[in-house]
Amino acid sequence: MAGSPRRTAGRRLQLPLLCLLLQGATAILFAVFVRYNHETDAALWHWHNHSNADNEFYFRYPSFQDVHTMIFVGFGFLMVFLQRYGFSSVGFTFLSAAFALQWSTLVQGFFHSFHRGHIHVGVERLGRLSFCSWPCWRWCCLASTSLCSLVSSGVLYRPQLEKSKHRQGSVYHSDLFAMIGTIFLWIFWPSFNSAPTTLGDGQHRSALNTYYSLTASTLSTFALSALVGRDGRLDMVHIQNAALAGGVVVGTSAEMMLTPFGALVAGFLAGTVSTLGYKFFTPTLESKLKVQDTCGVHNLHGMPGVLGALLGVLVAGLATHEAYGDGLESVFPLLAKGQRSATSQAMHQLFGLFVTLIFASVGGSLGGLLLRLPFLDAPPDSQCYEDQVYWEVPGEHEDLAQGPLRAEELETQA
Amino acid sequence: MAGSPRRTAGRRLQLPLLCLLLQGATAILFAVFVRYNHETDAALWHWHNHSNADNEFYFRYPSFQDVHTMIFVGFGFLMVFLQRYGFSSVGFTFLSAAFALQWSTLVQGFFHSFHRGHIHVGVERLGRLSFCSWPCWRWCCLASTSLCSLVSSGVLYRPQLEKSKHRQGSVYHSDLFAMIGTIFLWIFWPSFNSAPTTLGDGQHRSALNTYYSLTASTLSTFALSALVGRDGRLDMVHIQNAALAGGVVVGTSAEMMLTPFGALVAGFLAGTVSTLGYKFFTPTLESKLKVQDTCGVHNLHGMPGVLGALLGVLVAGLATHEAYGDGLESVFPLLAKGQRSATSQAMHQLFGLFVTLIFASVGGSLGGLLLRLPFLDAPPDSQCYEDQVYWEVPGEHEDLAQGPLRAEELETQA
Amino acid sequence: MAGSPRRTAGRRLQLPLLCLLLQGATAILFAVFVRYNHETDAALWHWHNHSNADNEFYFRYPSFQDVHTMIFVGFGFLMVFLQRYGFSSVGFTFLSAAFALQWSTLVQGFFHSFHRGHIHVGVERLGRLSFCSWPCWRWCCLASTSLCSLVSSGVLYRPQLEKSKHRQGSVYHSDLFAMIGTIFLWIFWPSFNSAPTTLGDGQHRSALNTYYSLTASTLSTFALSALVGRDGRLDMVHIQNAALAGGVVVGTSAEMMLTPFGALVAGFLAGTVSTLGYKFFTPTLESKLKVQDTCGVHNLHGMPGVLGALLGVLVAGLATHEAYGDGLESVFPLLAKGQRSATSQAMHQLFGLFVTLIFASVGGSLGGLLLRLPFLDAPPDSQCYEDQVYWEVPGEHEDLAQGPLRAEELETQA
Repeated sequence: MAGSPRRTAGRRLQLPLLCLLLQGATAILFAVFVRYNHETDAALWHWHNHSNADNEFYFRYPSFQDVHTMIFVGFGFLMVFLQRYGFSSVGFTFLSAAFALQWSTLVQGFFHSFHRGHIHVGVERLGRLSFCSWPCWRWCCLASTSLCSLVSSGVLYRPQLEKSKHRQGSVYHSDLFAMIGTIFLWIFWPSFNSAPTTLGDGQHRSALNTYYSLTASTLSTFALSALVGRDGRLDMVHIQNAALAGGVVVGTSAEMMLTPFGALVAGFLAGTVSTLGYKFFTPTLESKLKVQDTCGVHNLHGMPGVLGALLGVLVAGLATHEAYGDGLESVFPLLAKGQRSATSQAMHQLFGLFVTLIFASVGGSLGGLLLRLPFLDAPPDSQCYEDQVYWEVPGEHEDLAQGPLRAEELETQA
Repeated sequence: MAGSPRRTAGRRLQLPLLCLLLQGATAILFAVFVRYNHETDAALWHWHNHSNADNEFYFRYPSFQDVHTMIFVGFGFLMVFLQRYGFSSVGFTFLSAAFALQWSTLVQGFFHSFHRGHIHVGVERLGRLSFCSWPCWRWCCLASTSLCSLVSSGVLYRPQLEKSKHRQGSVYHSDLFAMIGTIFLWIFWPSFNSAPTTLGDGQHRSALNTYYSLTASTLSTFALSALVGRDGRLDMVHIQNAALAGGVVVGTSAEMMLTPFGALVAGFLAGTVSTLGYKFFTPTLESKLKVQDTCGVHNLHGMPGVLGALLGVLVAGLATHEAYGDGLESVFPLLAKGQRSATSQAMHQLFGLFVTLIFASVGGSLGGLLLRLPFLDAPPDSQCYEDQVYWEVPGEHEDLAQGPLRAEELETQA
Repeated sequence: MAGSPRRTAGRRLQLPLLCLLLQGATAILFAVFVRYNHETDAALWHWHNHSNADNEFYFRYPSFQDVHTMIFVGFGFLMVFLQRYGFSSVGFTFLSAAFALQWSTLVQGFFHSFHRGHIHVGVERLGRLSFCSWPCWRWCCLASTSLCSLVSSGVLYRPQLEKSKHRQGSVYHSDLFAMIGTIFLWIFWPSFNSAPTTLGDGQHRSALNTYYSLTASTLSTFALSALVGRDGRLDMVHIQNAALAGGVVVGTSAEMMLTPFGALVAGFLAGTVSTLGYKFFTPTLESKLKVQDTCGVHNLHGMPGVLGALLGVLVAGLATHEAYGDGLESVFPLLAKGQRSATSQAMHQLFGLFVTLIFASVGGSLGGLLLRLPFLDAPPDSQCYEDQVYWEVPGEHEDLAQGPLRAEELETQA
């Protein structure tokens, strides 16, 4: 079942070298730059004579843990629906998220907590991960990831991928594992949207709006899925993904005075757009544009993300001193200081949306081309969505549909 | 595999219409009535010059998230033990819980936070779901749900259900999925019992009592399950359900001065009664009374619930100013104000139990009759516990016992 | 499929009697000794005129719940990788953890909160479980469990265990269940390390250090697993276990001023040592020393634990008033009071390590001999790792490799 000797040697070294290199680099940067902040440093904390109960830990840690549960359990299991890609889905999400925690400490630190030559860390900093203060920016991160993968997927189009087609399906229990992912994402998305806001009413409101939006996207997803399904049957792929669109769509505006009714409407539209995307757009994307979007990032993050950015533009444009009172300061600091009008804030956010779309398209294309470089040793088309390329898989695959991958299939293009 | 054209058209529209109707109704009611409260409204919060760390969010949100995890993950996966009903179990719990979040905002709001024509919402209100202040009332909700389903199950008795019998069983992995449900319910039941209490010692005591009660019901469930099992073997159905009876039994009394010893005794009895119910009562219920109680609501919520209500009567009757001090005010406000004696409080709770039992019987019968109405299009007896009625199911059911449902079986009574 | 009548009768009574005996004993001790503390007792709490928001519940409960999720979900599912031992793994973890919650109330209480003849309980006490104040002691508990099981495993060596060998393997979905365990352990290990510390910077720092250490052990585990794997493939057993070594290794030192860089280095070494242990040491242990370490306790808790104790010695030896400021009081009280030098503190911890190793070896041997006593009725060698010995298992084991256990196999040594 082994590949050719050269190929095997390459694979044996590739992942270890990548991990060691990345870990070595961050370790050196940590040694030079990263220090405890005044909430985590024993001497600094006790110097200020704080009451221990005031430590920001007690206000941030529960949301912080929710976000980690969401990322590791939610995203980890969401992709397990692929019948032979469960190990890779859970395992590689695990690896990338672990590294992202280190990396984001550095990136976030350089931009947001770099003082006197050092990055100062505590739970609230670590929790931001790839979040940023400007709420719209947060959306950009998600949307560009989504777009990048789509565009690079186009650049990477694999004409022989049909050979892996049978592995793109699910089996009964793999769909149940994926629902573990969905449900944990759903429950903790309110924490994800509210974690990076300032303490107080803003965090409270973000969580509440996200909850209402998620409930509405769940209802519209079930409604639409049955409406467009074969014989009116529900499709697990829709439920697993589109039900979460309500969390994405309020990503930018959850902290704003969206109103509970506004959250319901936003969530309902997002669930509708996302379900219809899975049903009608993904097949078109693949047959016409040659883009393979197995995870449906376009439908879960792409369209609801663009919708959410536009919603953010709208709600920002309607912001008044009357509606926000002194709370305007923390949601729209530039408005509160009189440096921007609501309309100008809305225009800035709209401009940000276009910049993001352009960056993501260019970045995605470059990323896709990069991944085509031969030394990166991507698996041949016929081995996509197959755990055995990277994992020791137990022999008794009785609950998989096609029996173990045949040796010749693995050797084939080696 | 499709049904007759008329039937298919009906099914295609039924769920979408129901979802759209319900969502439309709540959306309108939200637009008219629901507003942010003083903890989530930017202007109101900042008007009062609060410290952001005082926002009730930081005291309520962790318990609130626990309760959601319990409902969505716990109840969602608990029923996955049915080998071909996993999608429906997780999926429909997901849908109903999402809608319940919206609906309970309205119902709770009208009764408890309706001021000047508006319902004011924040996490603490949303978290109450179907909870109410009077602790006994909370029990009523659970108990009536339980009784309702039993009684309506009797009214709905399906003489041909034997045909679906083989699908009521579990397979190895479906039982493991169900244990995910059980364990999340167990861990978060203390949050469920403590979430709706007033802040402070009452919430702390509720969580503690529930923990002790759950540990004891777990021990008695394992003991009894082995004692009555075939060849002394443990039965997964008992562990999955009766181990949780300790959470149900202290539902009314967890906030009271039950003492840790009292919690152990209550939990132990509840686990015993529940396990014996699964072993001896459920088969009788089905063969003699023609009541099909697949989820065992009677054993998990019914008997432990009645036991718990009686325990609440006892502990309330023993309440003294000496034991509660000034804390009497928050646990038994009418006692503290001298408007009721402890005995009279106990009698009121006992009366509440009888009213609940009567309401639940009548309500259950009516509900059962309602579900028999032909336009509601309930699946024929031979298709009960079968995902394929409502879901696209992956073809490769290799880990299911009987192979995919035969087309003629689906058509059969259409 | 039943055993001989005597054997069956023995099994039927063994577990029930054990559960009833243990529950009876703790219930009596609870009645005599256990009382609410000033945070959970209504009269005491309200006597002191506290603000309800100051109740320690709000600072301790989220971490407390995390630790329970870790123990019940994490450890419960971690061992489900054994293809026919899933019920036992989840079920018996559930039972033991439930009893441990009661038992630790008593043990902890007698040592740490025994005043005027009573143990006073609240969430913070219950949360400590087997934790103790001296951080090194905590490590001892884990390490001795680990060593005990190894040594008793040696004493218990089952020459015919080869017969159960085929059941020690995993199947595809059982490995995915085990990853649920791993991921929940990973996410909540920071809460486990930080829960028993004093409030404030120490708890914050413990969580942060544990996170960084876990990320590094995850990277080194993936790197090493691919490096030593067949054809460079990753091994699920490594990922499931060694990735967690970063949490074990900082068990003693997480509260200290380890620095984020120090945490990365510690985690990286722990992941490396643990992965190499699984690859090279476990097979040697079994073939040469006749020790069967199915769970790999040696590699997950043993070696990283010893490494962690040595790290604790090092970091304690380097402790200065300058680095800790007034925080020295809570991390090293004896140092702060001037009753010990940093070197002497380090020596005390080193001595503690040796004492632990000796105690664990002796205790493990005795425990192993005890388990050999015939009345304890351990299953014969050929029935190890087999759920059917203790559980009713659904007949349709289609996703298990070898079909249901044959009746004669169960009878065999009865």
